[in-house]
Amino acid sequence: MARAVQVAVTGAAGQIGYAILPRLASGEVFGPDTKVTLRLLEITPALPALEGVVMELDDCAFPLLEKVVITDDVNVAFDGISWGLFIGSKPRGPGMERGDLIRENGPIFVSQGQALSRAANDVRVAVVGNPANTNCLIAMHNGVKAGVPKERFSSMMRLDQNRAAAQLAQKAGAPVGQVSHMAVWGNHSATQYPDADNARINGRPATDVIGHVSWLQNEFIETVQQRGAAVIAARGHSSAASAANAALDHVRSFEAATPGDDWFSAGVPSDGSYGVEEGLIFSYPLRSDGQGGYSVVEGLELSDFARQKIAATTAELQEEKAVIADLL
Amino acid sequence: MARAVQVAVTGAAGQIGYAILPRLASGEVFGPDTKVTLRLLEITPALPALEGVVMELDDCAFPLLEKVVITDDVNVAFDGISWGLFIGSKPRGPGMERGDLIRENGPIFVSQGQALSRAANDVRVAVVGNPANTNCLIAMHNGVKAGVPKERFSSMMRLDQNRAAAQLAQKAGAPVGQVSHMAVWGNHSATQYPDADNARINGRPATDVIGHVSWLQNEFIETVQQRGAAVIAARGHSSAASAANAALDHVRSFEAATPGDDWFSAGVPSDGSYGVEEGLIFSYPLRSDGQGGYSVVEGLELSDFARQKIAATTAELQEEKAVIADLL
Repeated sequence: MARAVQVAVTGAAGQIGYAILPRLASGEVFGPDTKVTLRLLEITPALPALEGVVMELDDCAFPLLEKVVITDDVNVAFDGISWGLFIGSKPRGPGMERGDLIRENGPIFVSQGQALSRAANDVRVAVVGNPANTNCLIAMHNGVKAGVPKERFSSMMRLDQNRAAAQLAQKAGAPVGQVSHMAVWGNHSATQYPDADNARINGRPATDVIGHVSWLQNEFIETVQQRGAAVIAARGHSSAASAANAALDHVRSFEAATPGDDWFSAGVPSDGSYGVEEGLIFSYPLRSDGQGGYSVVEGLELSDFARQKIAATTAELQEEKAVIADLL
Repeated sequence: MARAVQVAVTGAAGQIGYAILPRLASGEVFGPDTKVTLRLLEITPALPALEGVVMELDDCAFPLLEKVVITDDVNVAFDGISWGLFIGSKPRGPGMERGDLIRENGPIFVSQGQALSRAANDVRVAVVGNPANTNCLIAMHNGVKAGVPKERFSSMMRLDQNRAAAQLAQKAGAPVGQVSHMAVWGNHSATQYPDADNARINGRPATDVIGHVSWLQNEFIETVQQRGAAVIAARGHSSAASAANAALDHVRSFEAATPGDDWFSAGVPSDGSYGVEEGLIFSYPLRSDGQGGYSVVEGLELSDFARQKIAATTAELQEEKAVIADLL
């Protein structure tokens, strides 16, 4: 075994955790020659349930799973990690506004950012817990103070990207594997902008293949934005398996070099590209060099419609930032 | 794409279904060059929830997932399949005895066995739903009448095998990947016999490595037999992720040639080996030729202790068979 990687997962006893842990341990993300240590963080009351999850991981007899640590201490959880998957967050309670939710979650990501001082030098963070972009902003500010470069922080937009690709594929009657160049801009929220203008289906512009501008500017965007609620309505539970799958895709996209001239979408600290305020955690089309670095895809054409959408999601991120400004 | 495979999953909206479907669609079982069609069977009231699961499969944007069919009609579900994963079964209700459970489930597996007349010529069946061995026996008898050779039927013992390997590894302080030759004999029930005598750890006899006969004959066996209940006690839910993982291992073990001189365990129609009544679905150590065929590993030494255990689990299978004799 040439490699070993330590991965922290927060909120590990939750539904997304339950779906993602076997797939992290199976080798499908870090490859068949990399041993994996899982460092699982939960709140104290959830530790007994987490022990049950670890029993099941044991019972999978994964040859690549070297060790599982469970803890309610973030400093133990992040010791030596190369990836932190920040899945845990407080859910929205009855009568809570989005602002309340953001305030409730803020302190969690302050302490998690600080605890990254324990992490390995190559640590990268993917924030999944909502509000993901702003939680990531908090973790990043506190992580930078702990010595972690800001480029190591990302928030998950991959579920939105995959949902958008699936919708375009269905509309076009094409296999989803033929959809490429799927950008989703901005915030992981109802203001996100899934960008059909720059997407391609089997190499051709998706707008040409589908040719139905009103659908692309209305139903398509709304379906992607509202997909989480639609899954809850159908299943009676939130979308855990597809969120876990998206988190794995997210990690793989940062680990590997992006193929061809394609891109993937994730929230990263804005460098001001496309006129977005610098420092916000904003989802852009990205390319990874497979060496730990990535770059924003520059020079894409944006219509007036797209610019309006991007302005709206930017404004929402600015409002969210104002709510937690004291935590930065 | 050289290959395409159609896989039926019954009870697809249940917890094991939720855990297994993304992993069947991801390519980790049938490989990166095989497209997968999933044919999902559920009872009519569960179809709306199953639609939600399919939304999530769409939202995973799996390039290899060619098509998903959902239905409450077993004839539609099994049309053209090369694998049938029979996961769905009725759970034990309040006050039900094991015999009641067996009777309740029997008719399901009669109709599923009959519907295999719709399957592909190379169809293989793995029964996961409990009581798995006897459900498999019913499916096999009815499937044979529908033209499917009896050697295509197996019941899942892999969760027991993996649990046994994990327990031996923990006791020895060895990585679980070093445990090999793990036989679990008999019924997937509390009478199963996980066989430490023939197991090896890093190539050495497990009994030599562990050297604690009383532990191996008592705590070890009981822990494996009672593991399902222990997981429920810890998690508050039954072991869905590890069962799903074991089902994938089971399929992979039949698909690929068994490496080296190792073996795997699964319930298959007894050919009388080791004195077990012919025709019972009995878990043996098996080797696959990777061409669709398998053979029972013959000539293993069994102690008097082992023979007693095997006799007890055989007797239980005979009793279960008597309860459903009219369905064969």
